[in-house]
Amino acid sequence: MKHARSLFILVLFASFTLTLVGCQPAGEPSATTEGSATAVAATPSTPKVAWALAIHGGAGVIRSAVAPEDEPEYLASLQAALDLGAAMLAEGKSSVDVVEAVVRSLEDDPHFNAGKGAVFSSEGTNELDAAIMNGQDLNCGAVSGIKTVKNPITLARHVMEESRHVFLMGEGAEAFATETGVERVDPQYFFVQRRYDSWQKAVEREKAQGKAAAGMAALPRAEDHEASQGKYGTVGAVALDQAGNLAAATSTGGLTNKRFGRVGDVPIIGAGTYADNRSAAISCTGIGEKFIRNTVARNVAALMEYQGLSLEAAARAMIDDRLEPGDGGLIAVGRDGSIALVFNSEGMFRGAADASGRSEVAIF
Amino acid sequence: MKHARSLFILVLFASFTLTLVGCQPAGEPSATTEGSATAVAATPSTPKVAWALAIHGGAGVIRSAVAPEDEPEYLASLQAALDLGAAMLAEGKSSVDVVEAVVRSLEDDPHFNAGKGAVFSSEGTNELDAAIMNGQDLNCGAVSGIKTVKNPITLARHVMEESRHVFLMGEGAEAFATETGVERVDPQYFFVQRRYDSWQKAVEREKAQGKAAAGMAALPRAEDHEASQGKYGTVGAVALDQAGNLAAATSTGGLTNKRFGRVGDVPIIGAGTYADNRSAAISCTGIGEKFIRNTVARNVAALMEYQGLSLEAAARAMIDDRLEPGDGGLIAVGRDGSIALVFNSEGMFRGAADASGRSEVAIF
Repeated sequence: MKHARSLFILVLFASFTLTLVGCQPAGEPSATTEGSATAVAATPSTPKVAWALAIHGGAGVIRSAVAPEDEPEYLASLQAALDLGAAMLAEGKSSVDVVEAVVRSLEDDPHFNAGKGAVFSSEGTNELDAAIMNGQDLNCGAVSGIKTVKNPITLARHVMEESRHVFLMGEGAEAFATETGVERVDPQYFFVQRRYDSWQKAVEREKAQGKAAAGMAALPRAEDHEASQGKYGTVGAVALDQAGNLAAATSTGGLTNKRFGRVGDVPIIGAGTYADNRSAAISCTGIGEKFIRNTVARNVAALMEYQGLSLEAAARAMIDDRLEPGDGGLIAVGRDGSIALVFNSEGMFRGAADASGRSEVAIF
Repeated sequence: MKHARSLFILVLFASFTLTLVGCQPAGEPSATTEGSATAVAATPSTPKVAWALAIHGGAGVIRSAVAPEDEPEYLASLQAALDLGAAMLAEGKSSVDVVEAVVRSLEDDPHFNAGKGAVFSSEGTNELDAAIMNGQDLNCGAVSGIKTVKNPITLARHVMEESRHVFLMGEGAEAFATETGVERVDPQYFFVQRRYDSWQKAVEREKAQGKAAAGMAALPRAEDHEASQGKYGTVGAVALDQAGNLAAATSTGGLTNKRFGRVGDVPIIGAGTYADNRSAAISCTGIGEKFIRNTVARNVAALMEYQGLSLEAAARAMIDDRLEPGDGGLIAVGRDGSIALVFNSEGMFRGAADASGRSEVAIF
């Protein structure tokens, strides 16, 4: 009886301690960098691996959109982007440099809905969004409604590092692009026949449904899913570098036939993109509106920071429990080098690599 | 000895239980509304008061900007907006209706930097941002770069309730405004001499500093604070209604001499605006870039939801500990009807009222 009670005390105490560990108060930043960004210390715990990288090329109902015979070329594209980032991390490059370079390569690849290969808006234009975030100091940069910048992620990095602002949109962002000297292209550069055909089909479907031409009318909510399935997509990369710093980058062409001026979750810090050395770097893909409402990327980090959840558990809490089947997915790298690739759609173009030799790509 | 041990067990058990309460896993939504928004139950705990309301008219170095003899008229403006909202809540109106109506009245009031009275961008235009969020279902609407809509907050509500999207910007948002029939104005409507003079001074200061005219060049980070002090501002309202539902609304003209196309924290769900029946409704004001990087509004809610902090403690953790002096402030109403009005700037135009008879406005 006495032993039973002692055991009871022990179990209680252990549970209490464990709970406390997962429930520490909001950590204050340990130092302040120059400028106005909040400083976050490099990951204090020794990572399990020297570096880690995850990438995605969008989520959705892909099996109907990608013919089995085309799968190898998608996988090869993912592997090339993954190898590029892995080599840079192995060389000791910073996570910010790596996620920018990987996303640039995915933007340049017409297989994915970002940069070349972007989908068409309801006006028949390509409007691109991108964001990048540095987990070391929470500095970030985002752009929306880009039409003539070849690599929106690079413009987002210029916003992060050279502008007094965090988020620039539309013509103002294009004017800033001119100052920075980033590579410009004719809007025709983004044209990909397959994306154009997909847009034409969406327009015809809306007409058949009696909606105003070119999707200018607001669609009822119930049609959101159907209108989006298989036609959204995004590219992203998250990394932990050898200095223990995390970074995230995401870029997209948005939803096919999206309304002119629509901003999705990608450039919304905390929704589609987030990085914080206290917890993780996260990049999302899916129905952006759902990711904004549920502040998905920030929530994954908050569940780790404030409740001590593992990266995988935090990602699953959002994708499996908070969101609904078909909404999309996310990739994340934790400050300990753990990797999560979680989605509730049929598939997600994805890849993961780390210093232990892991290197894998998958679609379904 | 035996009693001491029993007491010890009791204390441990109580602590553990309390910790658990404040540390419950990510709550699953208890039901699903129609459409794609996540449903959040109305606040399960009985609020201390039947309804509660907080408002703000911006934060910053106000003592130099507001002459002592002008203080009474600012206070009267705040009291009028507060009384309007309090009367609606007492009548049983929904929190969404109330925060929209209160923000409309502050937009129409030239004392504040939103709607009429908005500051000038680097191009000499007024570009307005607004967002609204419903804590019951996490539905939300945001607009950015608005130039001809008299009440941007009402356009944001139309986005929330009638569009398949959450966030519309620039010309796309203006095109949507035409469909909804919201009141339009000539951009000249927003002109207020005092704001224009303030912009002219900012332009001259930049010229004197050798910057490109009209602020098109990126300012170094160190100048952010100086360039912003006393010249930013925002209006906002947060409310708990008698049905136990929370809502938040925020509207702004942005920073004086802000770069063309700059998006601040106001329309970023989770940065300047957030509402969730699980925790609180929050509206922020200050240097938007800092609020975006620190996902301030979502962080306040996350500290309550995931760590069980009180509203006041969560707000202070962000404003006092995470941000830096002079960054700004926030107003918040918790699901229990508690109110927080927290700022680290010299002052914040603010007001608070609840069903217990509380009704107060203040600047410093």
